[in-house]
This record gives sequence, C-alpha cells and structure tokens, in this order.
Amino acid sequence: MAPVPNGTVPSAPVTGRLSSVYSEVQMKRVDHALPLPSVLKHPFTLLDGPPSSAAGNPDEIAKLFPHLFGQPSVALVPSDPRVAQTHHKLKIGVVLSGGQAPGGHNVISGIFDYLQERAQGSTLYGFRGGPAGIMKCKYVELTSEYIYPYRNQGGFDMICSGRDKIETPEQFKQAEETAKKLDLDGLVVIGGDDSNTNACLLAENFRSKNLKTRVIGCPKTIDGDLKCKEVPTSFGFDTACKIYSEMIGNVMLDARSTGKYYHFVRLMGRAASHITLECALQTHPNITIIGEEVAAKKLTLKNVTDYIVDVVCKRAEISYNYGVILIPEGLIDFIPEVQHLIGELNEILAHDIVDEGGLWKKKLNDQSLKLFEFLPQAIQEQLMLERDPHGNVQVAKIETEKMLIQMVETELEKRREEGKYKGQFRGQSHFFGYEGRCGLPTNFDATYCYALGYGAGALLHSGKTGLISSVGNLCAPVEEWTVGGTALTLLMDVERRHGKFKPVIKKAMVELEGAPFKMFASLRDEWALKNCYVSPGPIQFSGPGSDATNHTLLLELESQA
Amino acid sequence: MAPVPNGTVPSAPVTGRLSSVYSEVQMKRVDHALPLPSVLKHPFTLLDGPPSSAAGNPDEIAKLFPHLFGQPSVALVPSDPRVAQTHHKLKIGVVLSGGQAPGGHNVISGIFDYLQERAQGSTLYGFRGGPAGIMKCKYVELTSEYIYPYRNQGGFDMICSGRDKIETPEQFKQAEETAKKLDLDGLVVIGGDDSNTNACLLAENFRSKNLKTRVIGCPKTIDGDLKCKEVPTSFGFDTACKIYSEMIGNVMLDARSTGKYYHFVRLMGRAASHITLECALQTHPNITIIGEEVAAKKLTLKNVTDYIVDVVCKRAEISYNYGVILIPEGLIDFIPEVQHLIGELNEILAHDIVDEGGLWKKKLNDQSLKLFEFLPQAIQEQLMLERDPHGNVQVAKIETEKMLIQMVETELEKRREEGKYKGQFRGQSHFFGYEGRCGLPTNFDATYCYALGYGAGALLHSGKTGLISSVGNLCAPVEEWTVGGTALTLLMDVERRHGKFKPVIKKAMVELEGAPFKMFASLRDEWALKNCYVSPGPIQFSGPGSDATNHTLLLELESQA
Repeated sequence: MAPVPNGTVPSAPVTGRLSSVYSEVQMKRVDHALPLPSVLKHPFTLLDGPPSSAAGNPDEIAKLFPHLFGQPSVALVPSDPRVAQTHHKLKIGVVLSGGQAPGGHNVISGIFDYLQERAQGSTLYGFRGGPAGIMKCKYVELTSEYIYPYRNQGGFDMICSGRDKIETPEQFKQAEETAKKLDLDGLVVIGGDDSNTNACLLAENFRSKNLKTRVIGCPKTIDGDLKCKEVPTSFGFDTACKIYSEMIGNVMLDARSTGKYYHFVRLMGRAASHITLECALQTHPNITIIGEEVAAKKLTLKNVTDYIVDVVCKRAEISYNYGVILIPEGLIDFIPEVQHLIGELNEILAHDIVDEGGLWKKKLNDQSLKLFEFLPQAIQEQLMLERDPHGNVQVAKIETEKMLIQMVETELEKRREEGKYKGQFRGQSHFFGYEGRCGLPTNFDATYCYALGYGAGALLHSGKTGLISSVGNLCAPVEEWTVGGTALTLLMDVERRHGKFKPVIKKAMVELEGAPFKMFASLRDEWALKNCYVSPGPIQFSGPGSDATNHTLLLELESQA
Repeated sequence: MAPVPNGTVPSAPVTGRLSSVYSEVQMKRVDHALPLPSVLKHPFTLLDGPPSSAAGNPDEIAKLFPHLFGQPSVALVPSDPRVAQTHHKLKIGVVLSGGQAPGGHNVISGIFDYLQERAQGSTLYGFRGGPAGIMKCKYVELTSEYIYPYRNQGGFDMICSGRDKIETPEQFKQAEETAKKLDLDGLVVIGGDDSNTNACLLAENFRSKNLKTRVIGCPKTIDGDLKCKEVPTSFGFDTACKIYSEMIGNVMLDARSTGKYYHFVRLMGRAASHITLECALQTHPNITIIGEEVAAKKLTLKNVTDYIVDVVCKRAEISYNYGVILIPEGLIDFIPEVQHLIGELNEILAHDIVDEGGLWKKKLNDQSLKLFEFLPQAIQEQLMLERDPHGNVQVAKIETEKMLIQMVETELEKRREEGKYKGQFRGQSHFFGYEGRCGLPTNFDATYCYALGYGAGALLHSGKTGLISSVGNLCAPVEEWTVGGTALTLLMDVERRHGKFKPVIKKAMVELEGAPFKMFASLRDEWALKNCYVSPGPIQFSGPGSDATNHTLLLELESQA
C-alpha cells in the first residue's frame, strides 16, 4: 500500500481550477478517453424527419413560434465519404443553466472537440454564471488548455451556472446584442425544461430578427423529469441516483446490522419522484413513497402515515424493528390536503394577526384545521415561521422525513395502547441532495454528455436551430447510439398564466403505467417484509458494473422496444 | 452499455443473506482475493518482547490484572520450516461489539481461514448480537458456505453486534458457562476501547478460574481513537473517512459551481476529531474545527463563531460568498462553557419547574446565562426539551451544524450593520454519519482486517491471551506488514469511578503536536481563502488510488520512522 499524495493537475489552466489539487481518481478521469457513437466518427449528413407538431395545443404553439413550429426533427446518418463535408469555421457560445448535474463539463468538451475536429479554426465562448452571462456579455474563450482539467469532472465550475431567465423584451435585446457583438453562429443551452423552453424562445427570437445565431438545447437535470421518446433521459440522473444509492445501500446494512433503527431517507427531486423510484429499484428498501402515486390515489398524510405504520407493525411481528424508507423531496407537493392547508395559511399569514391563543385557527376550514392539529408541533412551527420574501410558506424547507418520523411515532403509540403493536421504533432522518449534484460523472453520463455535446456541434454546423440534442438507442453499445436533434416545439404545450398562453415543456412525471413503476409495484410487498437489500457500492470507473446504465432507462427502453 | 440486472449470490448461505440480491460491485468484492503479509504465508513462531507495563498507574493495573499484568507483547517471525508447526484443533468463538465499522466481516474471514489452513478440523462459533450472545450462549457455527457471501462486504450482519457489556460477577459467570459449554479454546473480541478493556477483564477472569479459554482483542472503530505505537490504526477509519470525503468533495464542487452556499458538514466522531481531521486532509475545506484544539485553547462558542465569521468576511471581500466547513460531531463536548451550562441545566431541569416567564433562568450562573441567551432559540428549545430517560440533556441530538449556521448569521448581521461585511450568506447543513459505518471496505481495510483476523487465529493457536491483534508497518507493501499481539494491559490506565479504580484504554485524541494536525495547521490559512478543494471521488477497488492509505496513518507512520 504505497503512500498516495494528491497530485497537481498536469496542465492547469490560467484561470479556473488553478489552485486545485487533484485526487488520484480525478487525475485518472481527466485522461479517460471517451468513445463516440459510430455515426459521429465518420462523415455524416442530416436526415429530416416528417413535419413536427406539439405535445399539446399545437395551434397555440404555432402562434408562439411562427418561424420554428412544424420544423422536422433530424437524425445524423452516415454519408458517402466522397461527398465533401462542411468545414466552415464557427463562433459558438455555450451556457449552463440551473442546478448542477454530473456531466455538464463533458457536454462542453463534446462541443469543443467537434469544433476542433470538424470545423478547425472555430471559437467556443463559455458564458459565465448562466444566462446572466449572455445578457451581460460575460464570457471566456474556451481553449484546449482551459477545458482539459474539467474533462470527466463533476461540478459546473468551468463557467458556472445561474438561474436567471431571458424573458423580457429588454433581456432578449441584451441577448441579441451579445450575439451580434461576438458574431455568434450558434449557442448551446444546457439546462432543464424551463431552460430548454427559453432556448426555443431565443431561437425563435433570433430567427425573427434575421440573426444568424442558431440555438440548440441539451437535456440536463438530475431529477430525470426532462425526457420523452426522442430524448430518453436527461444527463446527471444516472450519476446522482448511483451516488444516493451507494449511501442508501450503506444505511441498509447499518439498519440490518444494528437491528434498531428505521432510516427515513429524503431524496432530492421535488417535481417528480424519478430519483426515489430509481434508488428503490437499485436498493430494494422496505418502504418507498412515490409522489405521483400519492397524488393519483388522492392520499392524505394520514394515509401515508398509516401505510408506513402498517409495514412497521407487520415487521415488528417477525422481530424486524428496523428498516429503510425512501421519501421524495416533493412529497408534500403531491398531497392535495397539504396544498389546501398551505394555501389557506398563506392567506391568513398575509392578512391576519396570529394570536398566541390560537383564535386565528378558526379561519382554517375544518379539513385544514384537522390536518394542522394532526401535524407534529415542530412542523406546525415551521409552517408558521419559515416564510419566503413574499410571505409564503417555504415548502422545500419542511423536513418531510422528520415530520413522518414524528407522525409514525404518534400512531405507533396509539396502536401500542390498543395492543396492536409491541415493537420498538427509533427513527433516523437523512437528506441526500447536494452530494449527488456534483459527483464525478459515471461512465454512462460521461459518454452520454460527450455525445450530446458533439451532436450539438454537428447540428449547429448544419445550420439547425430550435432543436434539442438527442442521443438514443442507449441500451446498445455506444457505437450503435443514434444522434440527432428533436424539434423543441414538439415537446411543448401551453399553460395559461396571467391570462396569457406561455409555452412549457411539461415535466415528465413517474408514469404509474410505465415499466419502472410497475416493476417496483410488483416487488414492493416482498421488499416490505423480507429484507432484499442491495448495496450498489461506490461508483466504479472500471471493471464489473462500471458501464451499467440505470434501471429506469433500461426498463423504459425495453418496454418501448 | 449493456443492461446490468443485479445478480443473486452464487452460493447463498442457509441463513444470513439468504434473500439478498447482490450488486455487481458486491459480487466482484465477494471473490476479491486478499493478500497476506509474508510472515503469515510461511511457517512462523512467536517471539516474546520484554515484560510490559501500563499506559499509566502500573501498580493499580497490576492489582486489577494479577495474572496478566507484565506479560510481554509478541511478534510473529518466520520459523525454520523443518520445525514442526502446531496443528491441534481449536474451538474458537468470535463476537462483534459496538458500532459497525467496515471490515468486521473480514476479521472473521481471517480467523476462519487461519483455522482452515493451519488448524484443520477446528470450529468457529459466531456469537450473535454482540456480548449478549456470549452471555446467553446464542451462536451460530460459521462454515465456509456461511461466511462466503460476507467476504469483503460492509456491515456487521453476519452475526450482528450489540452494546451490552460483560461486567458484573453474574455476567462473568454466564460467560464462563458458555465457554465451558462450547469447550472454547479461545474468543476473539472485535471492538473499540471499551470492548477491548472488557476483553482483557474476561481474559483475566478466565485465567483466574483456570479456564482454558484465551481471549484476543481486535481494534475496531471508525472514529480512529483506538490506536498506539503498536496498533497504528483501528479498522473502519480508512473506509469511513473516504466515504465522507467523497461526499465532501462533491459538496465542494457544488459550492464552487453555484457560488452561493456555505455548507456546514458535521462528521461522526464524538470523542475525538480524527475523522474530521482526516477528511480535511483529503479535501481541503475552507474551515475545519478540531475539537481537541478548541479544548486546548479553551475556546468559547463565541470564539468559534468569530473564527468562522472572520473567514466568511475575508472571503466576501474577494467575492467568495461560498465555502465548506467541517465540524466534528463532538464539538460541544470540547467547549468548557457549554459543558458548564449543560451541567447546570441538568440540575435545574431535575429539580425545578421551568416557568414560561423565564424566572428559572435566574438559577443559571452569569456566564451560563449569557451563553444560553447567546444560543439560537431552536437550540435553547432543544436543550430544554430533548432529554434522555435520566432527564439529562441529549448533547448528541443537538444539531451543531445548524446551531453554528444560526450563530454565524447573527454575527454577520451585526458586522453588516457595522459596515464590516457586505456579502451574502446562505448556510446549508449536512450530517455524514451512518452512511460511513457500513460501506464496502476499501482495499486497505479489507486487507488489514483479514490480517488482523488471521493473526488473532495464530495468537490463540499459540495459547496467547489478553493481547490485541497488532498489524504494523502499514506503509510498506502488504508482504512486509508485521503481525503480532500487544499486551492489552500495556494500553491501560485507571480511572476512579464511584470510589473504585476502573481500568480503561484511554482514547487516542488528535495530538496538536502530531504530524497530521501540524500538516493541517500549516495549510489551513491557505485553504481558508484560496479554494484548494480536492474531490477524492468514489472509492475505487482497482486502478489508481485503490490501494491508497489515508493521510493520518501515513503522516503518523512517517513521523515515527
């Protein structure tokens, strides 16, 4: 076992990770060579599909995107090598938008390498700090030396990200000015559903102003809720789920070894429960709550509590006074009665004085009052005290896992008094979130992102705009992956906000009729009582398991095949 | 990227992990072959050292251990292959005591393989659920098939652990009965400082009763506070620190990418801050609080807060409104004024009525009252409400990281009003604990544990008792590791409790003059302002970094050399 000091980065960039010291694993990853799908390794051409429509309300989408609506999606296909390939130089900008997801740096590397290999003499600008960087024209020119230390690395710190949006006419104007100033041929927006909607609006705007700047989106979010038939998964989901599953697997062995704790694990992912579902498929916990199912069955908080308590009681009868329970971060958002209560609280807190005697509670309707009284005191206080700048209750700050522990405790005491429970219950709470957003990307995410970026370069080079980079056939070997671009308008529907139609890419929720949920549902009763725990262990970059994709993607692709 | 369903264990045991499904990484690890130190691969003999003394108060230790005190430590050395080796059969018991630490299963595998290879026909019993299993004679006979699925796996679930102690005359009697009933030649106790003290008491007791049963200890604790010159590290520390460091490294990249959060990470390890120090050396956080330094410098909570706030302010001046701060779980235990306050609160809460008006506070002395008023309200409430069954404040339940965030916020607001701070501060709290206790052991811990167990078998085979299995020279290649046994009485001192002397193995605290702390202290100012973050990444089982030992062990061994 030789001493292993951390090494310095072989060729550190002038800015960026200058003062960084790299671990051995980071160093190894920097030099990890990425495979490309075959179609990207040889001369290719773009094949147009049929005219596209929209996910809903095509007439409204057509009005919102008069220049782009209806344009076909495209596929890259091998071309006759004797046909001359486009080699004109490009000026391209790239921006990271929203929360981190492992693999973002590789999308940028993919764009860069495309330009180096297929459009020599091109320039790649990285806008700093998200869309604000576009509006303020804050950028850095990305060179080979600059990009090198970020290859296959986690984080978004190469150019950083931000949550600003380009929405108002004034902001569109700023973006235009930047595009003109830098003489941009194209812009790649790496982001989630909102950012890709904005990318399409920007594409439409540039087109309407006759600017040459094209816009291509890339699907990013650890939450896994930006996907459709053409875009089978968003990057980062694979890595984040594997990091959380490593931790869950460890906690499971802890639970089984001590035999005295119920671990309540809240997992990131507020809008959809894909992460929780995937982690369940990877680790086989005793109980898993899926928000979409709670909403579909219109469950109350009492129902959820009772479901957990029933399993705890049954396990106690077979002497298992321990277990692991997965809860999606957004659980509360899926429970209609909680939404009602919060709505009423927001009204009351905005307009009335909250008296210590509790007279204010009379303003709650009967059902909300009953629910409020049912909540543990600490949660009541969080609801009253934790307010955002608009005075609203901050749902994201509510520690759902602690709330459930307390509610389960209370219900178990009741059952104990009724003679229906004789076990011991000790809850331990966990929240796994930030740990998963910036890990070193798995081989899958590293390769997938590189192809997404390389493909985005190809789309821009061919003059395409308003598409989202799409890499498919992901269960096959990398060589056989398909590459193309999907019309962003095809993913869109409209929502009415303040009397106006706004385009939205609908978040992909967990489908209760989808293969991943059905697989989970067919196994959960067995997992509840038997202990079928799986410990996925730490992500490996070589050897067995290192090239595995996740269960959600596999099951979805298999069911489509 | 081929589909990778989880596989079943090739040869599942009749009990134990019967219903388990193994991940690919677990499967790979089950079959991972472990290297042995050369001395264990060939004929060896035991070489006695000089008579031993004690860590303190040798006269009292001599009285407490009349049969064992003074016995020499021993080293295994190669023997003339022509000299006949002992081959008599043995009946051995093994027990896991206290909290989990990665590698426990490998200690058992090591004992088992020793018996298979060097004492054919021997029997190994695993006592179930910790020392209680000895007293109640609850055991399982460990066979090759039974042990197989646990090789190189995390957790203690092969035979489970427990926190009972064998202390009273009645309990010693029960242990004797079990030893006689099973006709035990030896017992291996795998545990921390307390468990090894008890192992020595048991060895003394068996010897005094002329029982043939010998007792050997093994050093286990992720906290890393059971170590001395002869026992360079306790197993589990390496794996746990690497798991925590993976998460810390991820959170660091998150901090740098978003640029808007201060992550306060509380790390397991209540009595000593070794884990926090090691994680700091692996990841280079901006701020690290070491409990032993806080105690040595008699710092107050206000001092600690000010130290953090000073760094936050300096960073804000260079536009860094983010960072990562490591805090040992036991921080509060190291702050004298907090100890005083808690002592007073325990008294008051036991005897007085706590009135809502706060008149009870007049019973606190001035300094304690000032500190109490200085604490955030949520912490005040935790101190008043969270009580153990004896009515005492539960210090371990206090979320120190959240407390510090609130105190830092308050102090920053003050400085803002004074015009001394113009930055933004948003704290995020984390606790990394249970995730690290049951991970798949690193190559180091897997190999170290196997040697500890194999060596323990050798010590028992040679009729030794009251020793702790000791494997040294850990920075050299495995072949050159030394193997032996250290007299447990050599590690002991006495403490006076209830007017009686009790033997104790003193916990090894972070030495402020030791090499690891000095290395940290020489770098922390640079880490505070520059961002020298290292992301160690997930533990790898092959390739670069997979055989690395930790910084603490390396620096300590180097400084001794």
